[in-house]
Amino acid sequence: MTQKYVYFFGGKQAEGKADMRNLLGGKGANLAEMVNIGIPVPAGFTITTEVCTGYYDNDKQWPAGLEDQIRDAIAKVEADMGSKFGDPKNPLLFAVRSGARVSMPGMMDTVLNLGLNDTTIKGLIENSNDERFAYDSYRRFLQMYGDVVMGLDHDLFEEIIQARKDKKGVELDTELDADDWKVVVEKFKALIKKETGSDFPTDPFEQLRGAINAVFESWFNPRAQRYRELNDIPHDWGTAVNVQAMVFGNMGPHPKTGKGSGSGVAFTRDPATGENVFYGEYLMNAQGEDVVAGIRTPLPLKTLKEDMPEIYKELDAIRHKLEEHYREMQDVEFTIQQGRLHMLQTRSGKRTATAAIRIAKEMVEEGLIDRDTALLRIDPLQLDHLLHPTIDPKTDAKVLGKALPASPGAAVGRVVFNAKDAEEWKSRNEAVLLVRTETSPDDIGGMDAAQGILTTRGGMTSHAAVVARGMGKPCVAGLESATIRYENKTITFQDGTVAKEGDWLTLNGTTGEVLLGKADLIEPEVTGDFALIEEWADEVRTLQIRTNADTPHDAEVARGFGAEGIGLCRTEHMFFGADRIRVVQQMILADSTDARKGALAKLLPMQKADFIGIFKAMQGLPVTIRLLDPPLHEFLPHSDEDMAKLAEAMGVGKEVVKEKAESLREMNPMLGHRGCRLGITYPEIYDMQVQAIFEAASELTKEGVTVIPEVMIPLIGTVKELTILKSNALKVAKNVMEKAGVEFEYHIGTMIEIPRACLLADEIAKVADFFSFGTNDLTQMGFGYSRDDAGKFLQAYLNQGILEKDPFQSLDQKGIGQLVEVGVERGRSTNAELGLGVCGEHGGDPDSIVFFHKVGLDYVSCSPYRVPIARLAAAQAQIKCPR
Amino acid sequence: MTQKYVYFFGGKQAEGKADMRNLLGGKGANLAEMVNIGIPVPAGFTITTEVCTGYYDNDKQWPAGLEDQIRDAIAKVEADMGSKFGDPKNPLLFAVRSGARVSMPGMMDTVLNLGLNDTTIKGLIENSNDERFAYDSYRRFLQMYGDVVMGLDHDLFEEIIQARKDKKGVELDTELDADDWKVVVEKFKALIKKETGSDFPTDPFEQLRGAINAVFESWFNPRAQRYRELNDIPHDWGTAVNVQAMVFGNMGPHPKTGKGSGSGVAFTRDPATGENVFYGEYLMNAQGEDVVAGIRTPLPLKTLKEDMPEIYKELDAIRHKLEEHYREMQDVEFTIQQGRLHMLQTRSGKRTATAAIRIAKEMVEEGLIDRDTALLRIDPLQLDHLLHPTIDPKTDAKVLGKALPASPGAAVGRVVFNAKDAEEWKSRNEAVLLVRTETSPDDIGGMDAAQGILTTRGGMTSHAAVVARGMGKPCVAGLESATIRYENKTITFQDGTVAKEGDWLTLNGTTGEVLLGKADLIEPEVTGDFALIEEWADEVRTLQIRTNADTPHDAEVARGFGAEGIGLCRTEHMFFGADRIRVVQQMILADSTDARKGALAKLLPMQKADFIGIFKAMQGLPVTIRLLDPPLHEFLPHSDEDMAKLAEAMGVGKEVVKEKAESLREMNPMLGHRGCRLGITYPEIYDMQVQAIFEAASELTKEGVTVIPEVMIPLIGTVKELTILKSNALKVAKNVMEKAGVEFEYHIGTMIEIPRACLLADEIAKVADFFSFGTNDLTQMGFGYSRDDAGKFLQAYLNQGILEKDPFQSLDQKGIGQLVEVGVERGRSTNAELGLGVCGEHGGDPDSIVFFHKVGLDYVSCSPYRVPIARLAAAQAQIKCPR
Repeated sequence: MTQKYVYFFGGKQAEGKADMRNLLGGKGANLAEMVNIGIPVPAGFTITTEVCTGYYDNDKQWPAGLEDQIRDAIAKVEADMGSKFGDPKNPLLFAVRSGARVSMPGMMDTVLNLGLNDTTIKGLIENSNDERFAYDSYRRFLQMYGDVVMGLDHDLFEEIIQARKDKKGVELDTELDADDWKVVVEKFKALIKKETGSDFPTDPFEQLRGAINAVFESWFNPRAQRYRELNDIPHDWGTAVNVQAMVFGNMGPHPKTGKGSGSGVAFTRDPATGENVFYGEYLMNAQGEDVVAGIRTPLPLKTLKEDMPEIYKELDAIRHKLEEHYREMQDVEFTIQQGRLHMLQTRSGKRTATAAIRIAKEMVEEGLIDRDTALLRIDPLQLDHLLHPTIDPKTDAKVLGKALPASPGAAVGRVVFNAKDAEEWKSRNEAVLLVRTETSPDDIGGMDAAQGILTTRGGMTSHAAVVARGMGKPCVAGLESATIRYENKTITFQDGTVAKEGDWLTLNGTTGEVLLGKADLIEPEVTGDFALIEEWADEVRTLQIRTNADTPHDAEVARGFGAEGIGLCRTEHMFFGADRIRVVQQMILADSTDARKGALAKLLPMQKADFIGIFKAMQGLPVTIRLLDPPLHEFLPHSDEDMAKLAEAMGVGKEVVKEKAESLREMNPMLGHRGCRLGITYPEIYDMQVQAIFEAASELTKEGVTVIPEVMIPLIGTVKELTILKSNALKVAKNVMEKAGVEFEYHIGTMIEIPRACLLADEIAKVADFFSFGTNDLTQMGFGYSRDDAGKFLQAYLNQGILEKDPFQSLDQKGIGQLVEVGVERGRSTNAELGLGVCGEHGGDPDSIVFFHKVGLDYVSCSPYRVPIARLAAAQAQIKCPR
Repeated sequence: MTQKYVYFFGGKQAEGKADMRNLLGGKGANLAEMVNIGIPVPAGFTITTEVCTGYYDNDKQWPAGLEDQIRDAIAKVEADMGSKFGDPKNPLLFAVRSGARVSMPGMMDTVLNLGLNDTTIKGLIENSNDERFAYDSYRRFLQMYGDVVMGLDHDLFEEIIQARKDKKGVELDTELDADDWKVVVEKFKALIKKETGSDFPTDPFEQLRGAINAVFESWFNPRAQRYRELNDIPHDWGTAVNVQAMVFGNMGPHPKTGKGSGSGVAFTRDPATGENVFYGEYLMNAQGEDVVAGIRTPLPLKTLKEDMPEIYKELDAIRHKLEEHYREMQDVEFTIQQGRLHMLQTRSGKRTATAAIRIAKEMVEEGLIDRDTALLRIDPLQLDHLLHPTIDPKTDAKVLGKALPASPGAAVGRVVFNAKDAEEWKSRNEAVLLVRTETSPDDIGGMDAAQGILTTRGGMTSHAAVVARGMGKPCVAGLESATIRYENKTITFQDGTVAKEGDWLTLNGTTGEVLLGKADLIEPEVTGDFALIEEWADEVRTLQIRTNADTPHDAEVARGFGAEGIGLCRTEHMFFGADRIRVVQQMILADSTDARKGALAKLLPMQKADFIGIFKAMQGLPVTIRLLDPPLHEFLPHSDEDMAKLAEAMGVGKEVVKEKAESLREMNPMLGHRGCRLGITYPEIYDMQVQAIFEAASELTKEGVTVIPEVMIPLIGTVKELTILKSNALKVAKNVMEKAGVEFEYHIGTMIEIPRACLLADEIAKVADFFSFGTNDLTQMGFGYSRDDAGKFLQAYLNQGILEKDPFQSLDQKGIGQLVEVGVERGRSTNAELGLGVCGEHGGDPDSIVFFHKVGLDYVSCSPYRVPIARLAAAQAQIKCPR
C-alpha cells in the first residue's frame, strides 16, 4: 500500500486532526480540527512534512503516488467548493502556504490566487462581476509566482507597476483600474519570458507543482535556517504544505447588503488585559494582509456586530466553540466572502503577562482547565515585565541605538559619566543615568545612585549587567555603536547625536533600546491575580526559592516576593561602603599580620551590624553568607589621583600604595588569589567575618529572634581547603557561642564553582553541610569564558548558532550541567544529609530551574526581582517532572 | 595465640626478611636479611609497625604480650652477644632506632648507649679499658634520653658542657677528659631531676620502654608529619622500632694491632660515576656520626685495605654478597669494634644520573638484572641533570637568594633589565641574564638573547618559566625577596646586595639559587651508556614521544634527542619575529576585513617559509601545527612610547593605536577572545595559516620530501566551532593541493583544553582526526588557577599540604586526570580511529607520563630537552602497566 501523503480537509470531516501537528504542521492540523468540529473552513488539503523531508532525501523528487493523491484531493475540494481547478467558467483557485510543526512567522513562502491564466480569468470576472478585482488578483499571482517559484527579483515587477503609475500620473496602486492591470499582466508575462527564457506556466497543475516545490525549497532558505538555529528547531522536521481553496475578502459588495466581503483577525479574549471579551479587528472589502499592513485603519468587532449581525453571531459562536474545544485562548483569522464566513486559521494567541495570568486564572474558574495547566500556560520569563516600570509603547522618543537588554525595566535620567558625579547629582535629587564604557566594583556607589546604567562594552553578564540585575536596576549593555569621550563628558551615538553631561536619555532595559529625552513610563502593576497564581505555584513546587541579597533592604524586598531564605549574601559589597572602604584598604596595606588584625578589629562591629540587619529581615529563615570572595586588589584604587589620596589618608608614601597595588595586580583575576585562597593565606580575614556572623546571631538569639546562619566558603577546589577553613570557622563559632552562652542551628558549607570541585564532590561532601553551586563561575571555568570579556565573541557565537543561548543566562545543561549533576551525585553519595542549592544567575532562569529541579537540588537562589519567576518556574518543573 | 610483635635478628637466622619491609620497616627488614645471608650484624630485634599503629589506636598503650616478647628477644640478644642487659660486669647496651617502610631521613628519634647507669658504667669501663670513652658514652646517653624521651631542651645540656669547657679554658669536646665527663654526667642527672621533678630512670628496661615509646611518638612529630604530607606517605603506616646491640667504633686501639676500632660508610659502586669499584670512607676510632659530621677528614677504603687487610677482605666480600643478593648498588654502614666487623645498615644507594645509567647498564651486562629492571632503576627526572650545564658544587660564590627552579641548568651572565638591552648586549657578544619582574611575549627576543632569566614574580609555569623551558634556557622564577627598580636598573637582594646593570650573576635553574658573580660550570656529558639506555627504552615503550618545537632549530635538537614528530608547533612565536611583528600589528589595526586580508597576504610567504623549515627538519614524521592561539592584544605594545612608535610606523594617529589596544584589552585574557574564537570571528587569519601550511607541504611533497601536516585548532569548547573551522580549513587545503596537483596525508584535529570539551568529547570526536590534550589550560580552568597568578598562593598551598604537587608540573591525576580520562573514553566511543596525544607541559613529567600511558594516549609531546626523559618514563610506564 502506498503511504498517505495528502490529508484532505473540508465539508464535515477532515482526514487529519489537531494532534497530528508533527505530520501536518500546526496550521494544517488546526484547519483539519476546525473542520472536524463543524467550523466553516474553505476546503483544501495538507501535504505532510514527511514529503518535505523525503523531497530532500531523494534528490528533490516527489514520491511515487503523491501526484495521484494530490489530484484525488483536488477533486474532493472541487466537489466541496462547487468549482473546478482550471475551469474557464467557475475556476477553483488555491492558496499554497507552508506550515511547520511550530510557527515560523514569515520565514517561508506563500503563493496565492494559484490557478489563474488567460482562460480562467474569464470565469473569475464573471463570478465576481468585478474585472478590476480579477486582473488585480491575476497580476498578484504572476508577481508572487515569478518571485517565489521562478526566482525573479521582486523589484523587476514593482518597476513595471511604477512605470504604469508614472504614466498615469497617480501614486497609489488603488488608483490603477482594470485596464491598467491588464497591461501590467501582459508586461509581467513578457518579463518572465525574457528573464527565464520560458513562458509562464498556464497549466494549473504545473503551477501547483511549482508552488509546492517552492514551499519545500523555502524550508532551507537562509532566513528560515537561521531562525531554526536560533530557536532550536531541528532542520529535519521539514514543513507541510497547505493547499486551500481561495476565498476573497475583497469581493464586495457593501456589508449592508448582507453579501459584503471582508477579512479580520480576532482573539477569543483580550490579549492585553486577559479580559474575557471578544477582541479583534477587521476591514471590509479587504484581504487578510491589508488588516495587518495598516494602510487603512481596521474596525473593531463591535462595528461588525452592528453592520453584519448574523456574521458576528456566527463568529462569536465559533469563538466559544474554539475555546471550549482547545481550552486555550485562540488567535483566529477569518474572511467573509460575499456574506459567507470562512475561518482560515486558529492557534494559541500571544498575550501580555497580565493577560496570561488573568486568562489562566479565569479558565480555572470557568472549569476549562485545571490549576496545573493554568500554571503551565504562563511563561515565567514574561512575569519579568510585571516587576519593572516599562516604557509606554506609544512614546515617540527617538531611538538612538539598540544593544543588549541587560537588566529589564525603564530608566529615565540625566547622563553622567562617572560614579562620583552620579552620587553627587543624586544627592541634589537629580535622576541620573550612569554612562560608562564598562563598570567596575569602584562604581557600585554610582550605580546605586543611578536610575539605570548604560555601557558601551560588555555582555549580558558583564559587571554592569550582573550588578544592575542584582539591584533590580535597568541596564543596557554593550552599545558598541556609541563612543564615550570621558575627557569631554559626551557620548556620541551612531547617527551622530551627541549627549552631553546632564542631557536626558531613557533606557529600555527590556528591549535594549536607548531613547533620546524623557520617554513616558508605565508603572508596574502586581495584580491580585498575580499573587494568586504564585500561591498556586507554591502549593505545587518542591524546589525552595531563596534570594541573593546583600542588604536588609534587598532581603525585605525578596521576602515580600516570597523568598524562603537567603542563598547568597555577598560580604564584599559591604566592604565598599563609604564608611569602611578605608578600613578595608588599611587592612590590605598592613605590612604584618598584627597590623592586619588591627584593621580587621575595626571592621568587626560594622560587619556585625550588617548581619544583624539581614538576619532580622530574614528571621526564621536560613541566611547563607559567603565569606570574602574577590581578590584584594579590587578594593584598591586604580588611578594615580585616587592612589595619592589613599596614601595621604593612610599616612604612607604614594609609592607604598602603588607597590602594593602592583604586587596584587593579576593577569587573570578571575583565576587568581581570591575566594578561599584568601582564607588560607589570610586566615584572620575569615576569622573576623565568622566572628561577626556568630556575634550577630548570638545577640539576636538572646533577643528571641530565630536566626539560621549558614557560612559559605567560596571557590573550594580541594577538600583540604575546606577541612582547614571549616575547622578555623568552627573554632571561632564555638568560642563566640560559648562566650554568649547561646546555641542555635548553623551550617558550614561551600560553593561548588570550580570544575574540579564537582569531580571530587564525594570527598568534599564529607566535610560540608551544604553545597551551593556557583554556576556563574562554573560556566566561566567550564567553558573558558570570562564573563567580562566574552562580549567580544559571544554575539558572533549566538549569530552563527555555535551557542544556542548565552550560557551565562541559561545554564548549558549539556556541558556545565554535567558538572552539576556529577557534583550532586557524588556529593550525596558520601553525605546523604547534604543540603544542595544553586546561587548563580541561573537560579532565576526558568529553563535552568527545570534542570536544577530534575537533578535534585533543594533550592535555587536568585535576585529579589526574580523570585516570583522562580516560584512559577519551580512549579512548572514539578508538574513536568514530578519528584 | 598472641600476635607476633617482635622479630629477632642475629646469629645465623633472623625471624624477618627483606620482603617484610611493610611490617619491619626498611632498616629492620634489611638487618634481618643480612643476618639470613650470613653477614655479621650485631644482634637485635624489630618491633613491628603494627605496634606503632596500635599504640595510637589504643590510647598509647602497649598491647598485651609485647613486653614479654621484648624480654624474650632481649634474652636472645644476650645469648648471641655474650653480654647481659643491665649486667654490672659485662653490660649489653642498645641502640634504639626508628625505621619506617620508606626512609624518612632524620625525621624521627634515636637513642644510643641505652642500658647505662651508675652500675653498668663500671662494666663498660672494664671491658673497654677506657674510662673517658665510657663516661662520654654515658653523658651522650643522658643527653639523648633527656632530650628525646624526657622532653628537655637540648640546649640545656649543651650549656653544661660549655660551662665545663669555659672553666677548663678549652674549645673542643675532645679536649675534655674522663673526669670532666664524670662531672658533666652528675650535672646532667641533676638537671633532669630539676626540670622533670623525677630522677633519671636507672632500670634498663624502663629506659628501653621510654625509648621505644619516644620513637613511636616521633612518628607524629610535626616535621615527620610534614615530610609525609610532602612525600605522599600515609600517616597510618607507622614506624617500626629497631633495638640493636651497641657496637663501638671508638673503642680503640690502633688498627695496626689488628684489634682496631672504626666506623665507615661505603657504596658497592662509585655513586658519582657508577664505576664498579668499592667506594667508601671510614674513620678509625670513631662512631658512625663522626664520619658524616666532617670534623676529621675520613680516609678512603684503600687505606683500610693497607691497614687492616683482613677486615677489608671481609668487607669487600660482603660488598659482593650484598650486590649479588640485592642485585642493586648498596649503601652500607659498618663499624669495626676491636678488630671485629659489624654491618649496621644496607640500603639502595643514591647515585648521580651518570652513575645510575652506568650501573643499570653494567648490571645487565653482568647478568645481575634484566633490561626492564635496569630501566626501572633510573629516575627519569634525574636525566635532566645530564641535559644542561651545571654549577660546580665546589663553587664558593655567595648565594643571594633562592626561588623556584623554573628551568634547569646553570647560566652565567651580566645583568640587564629589559629585552632590548639583552639583544643589544648580546649583539656585542656579551653573555647576559635577563632580569625582569615578569616577562611577556614582548620579551621573547631578549629571552632568546640571554643566557638565563631571573624573575621576581611568577611560578613554575609563568611565562618566563614556560618559555625558558621551551628554549632549554635556565630560569629562576619568583624571587619575591628581591626588588627590581627599572628606573635605576638595579636589583636589590634580601641581604642588601645590589646588582647593577652589567654586574655578573649566576643562576642555578636546577636548584633555584641566585649566586653573586661568575660561578664555575660543569659541561653536560651525554655518554654512550645514556644513548644505549634510551635505545632499550625505545624497544619497550608503546607511547610515542613527540616534541613541542616552534623553530627548525628546536625541531632538529628534539629529533636528535629522539623525538618522533612535533606534537605542538605554536605559530604565535613566529608572529613575534622582528620582520613580521609590524605586519601582524598592521593586520590587527586593520579597520576592514579587506585591509586585514591585505596584511595577511604579506604574512603568508613568511609563515610558509617557517613551515618549510620545520617540515624539512621533521621530514617523514608528523608535524602538528596549532593555529593562532593568544589574544590579539598580546601583539600590541603596552607602553605609550611603543604605541607612538607603532602609530608612526603605521601612519595613523596615536589615538588609533590606543583605542584599538583599549578595545582589545581584557580582564581575563586567559578566558577571553583567543584560540578558535579568533578563528570564528576572523576566519581570514586561520585561512592564511592553513594556506601557508599546505603550500609549504605541497612544495616539499613535489621535491620528494615526506610531509605529514596536522592542523590543530585550539580551545574548542563546542562541536560547532570545530565543524565550522574544519570545513574552512578543508576548503583551503583542498584548493591548495588541487592547484599544486599533489596529494599527501594530513589530519585536522583539535586541542582538548577546556573542561567542557572533555565532557562533550563524544560529539567533538566525530569531526576530529585527533585530540591533543592541552593539560596546561585544562589545569588552569579545571582548578581555576591562572598560572600567571597562582604564585601568590601556590607555595602556601604546597607548604600546608593542600596540594601535594604543583599541578602545573605534575598532572593532578585525581581531578584534572578525570577530565582527560573522560575525554579519551568518550572521544574513542564515537571515533575508534581518533589520534590521542598530550602537548601540555605535563608531557615531560614522568608521573604524568605513566598516567597518560595508562589512559591510553598514543603520544606525549614535550619540550626538546625533555624528550630523553619522556622516552625512559614511557618505557617504565609500559613495564609497570603493560598494554
